[in-house]
Amino acid sequence: MTLSVIGLGLIGGSMAIDLKKRGFAQKVIGVDADNLHAQTALKIGFIDEIADLETAISLSDLIILATPVNVAISILPKILDKVENQIVMDVCSTKTGISAAAEKHSKRANFLAAHPMAGTEFSGPWAAISDMFDGKAGIICDQEKSSPKALETVAKVFETLNMRAVYMDSVSHDTHAAYVSHISHITSFALALTVLDKEKNESHIFDLAGGGFRSTVRLAKSSANMWVPIFQENSKNVIEVLDTYIEKMQNFRDAISDQNMDALREMITTSNKIKRVI
Amino acid sequence: MTLSVIGLGLIGGSMAIDLKKRGFAQKVIGVDADNLHAQTALKIGFIDEIADLETAISLSDLIILATPVNVAISILPKILDKVENQIVMDVCSTKTGISAAAEKHSKRANFLAAHPMAGTEFSGPWAAISDMFDGKAGIICDQEKSSPKALETVAKVFETLNMRAVYMDSVSHDTHAAYVSHISHITSFALALTVLDKEKNESHIFDLAGGGFRSTVRLAKSSANMWVPIFQENSKNVIEVLDTYIEKMQNFRDAISDQNMDALREMITTSNKIKRVI
Repeated sequence: MTLSVIGLGLIGGSMAIDLKKRGFAQKVIGVDADNLHAQTALKIGFIDEIADLETAISLSDLIILATPVNVAISILPKILDKVENQIVMDVCSTKTGISAAAEKHSKRANFLAAHPMAGTEFSGPWAAISDMFDGKAGIICDQEKSSPKALETVAKVFETLNMRAVYMDSVSHDTHAAYVSHISHITSFALALTVLDKEKNESHIFDLAGGGFRSTVRLAKSSANMWVPIFQENSKNVIEVLDTYIEKMQNFRDAISDQNMDALREMITTSNKIKRVI
Repeated sequence: MTLSVIGLGLIGGSMAIDLKKRGFAQKVIGVDADNLHAQTALKIGFIDEIADLETAISLSDLIILATPVNVAISILPKILDKVENQIVMDVCSTKTGISAAAEKHSKRANFLAAHPMAGTEFSGPWAAISDMFDGKAGIICDQEKSSPKALETVAKVFETLNMRAVYMDSVSHDTHAAYVSHISHITSFALALTVLDKEKNESHIFDLAGGGFRSTVRLAKSSANMWVPIFQENSKNVIEVLDTYIEKMQNFRDAISDQNMDALREMITTSNKIKRVI
């Protein structure tokens, strides 16, 4: 199997490493608009050669589209225009926009909208690591719109990455992702901004930062190139979750301000039920 | 050195383990209002015997006060009433209230207000672990109000725990702690509440939860018994940071709602400067 990876960053690069290492792909072709990224991927060795998009498509059995979601939406139709029997999967964090971009295409069945739920706060080919997907959820969206061969190929990709396949439609995916992924990033960005603002007057404030702060602020290192298009694509869901979240924060603020310790205790005790999950 | 630990939970228990193991204390006496906690601490072995408060004080060289902060504030004057040459340190997460409780006491100099900036989301004697403090900051507050012997003793405690001592006044401590610790807990509690609410209608929502969600929501497992008194004690600072934080969240909401991608990119890029710190 010859694999092309379009977008040689954290996700595309990490997939390339394990799909080659674990024998799924014999050859990996890399495509990236940024020549430094492409050269780095080649140097690190998780791609075997650099090609332009058209050449990569023509030489591949499977094409993994791993660019920021706005780029993916814009180039997916062009990729499908060139496809014959090749399978195309994307790995973007929002799914309705990219599904819509493929919807009316004559090669729709060759495409599968997927989302491996794994990552780190780092980005670019330098961030690509092995074993990142092990044990995580691999989302497969709108399976009825993809050919059996496309489904089988993506299921095999996830199996090779030691992921458990989870099936849902694009719309549900985007709602869920807003709640268990997108909001986490915004809470971290806002926390970083809050403390960095304060640091202007209190230069030693980070002397006190412990593990709790590190854990909640870690995602604030995430790349704007990846996240701005996600928030744009999933704005309706993200706004809904933000409104609920801001309301909860306001409830905490009010309980503290009113010295309503019973309300505070009840909110904390209810939130402790997250122990069922993590 | 005989050490008494009042409050045999995560912090008191973890200190007892390492202070004994590393030869600082030859004997550890435990005091806890909850008999199950006291018996568990004895069974696990990080205390050598259980005693009542008065007996523990009379037999000790150093008393570590590691209860929730409201309890600590209420019993500190009673402890100081009984003290002759013993040193008393507290390890609570807010410092102005406890400092005020000792302020006018004739034994004020025997007391040192401290805060080892370490912990986990777990609680009780079962949560006590070794090596938890290694490499973390050990805050020493209002040093000028404590005797040289008290300062030396607490510095030695932190040295034994492999902590770096950081000196500041109680008021600065409480401001700083609101920004780099207390707010992180509220963001996690609110995130847990938001997603648990949504789960009522979307039962599979946690199928998608990955490492980012886990990292930002982890602190929502923290104990109400510890955190309600902290928010009560530090309400003024916590409200200030909450107001700033909610404003930042609102800015994200507005930028997404207005599809103002330049503003979003700028906020994310600015928040990325947290890389200087973590």
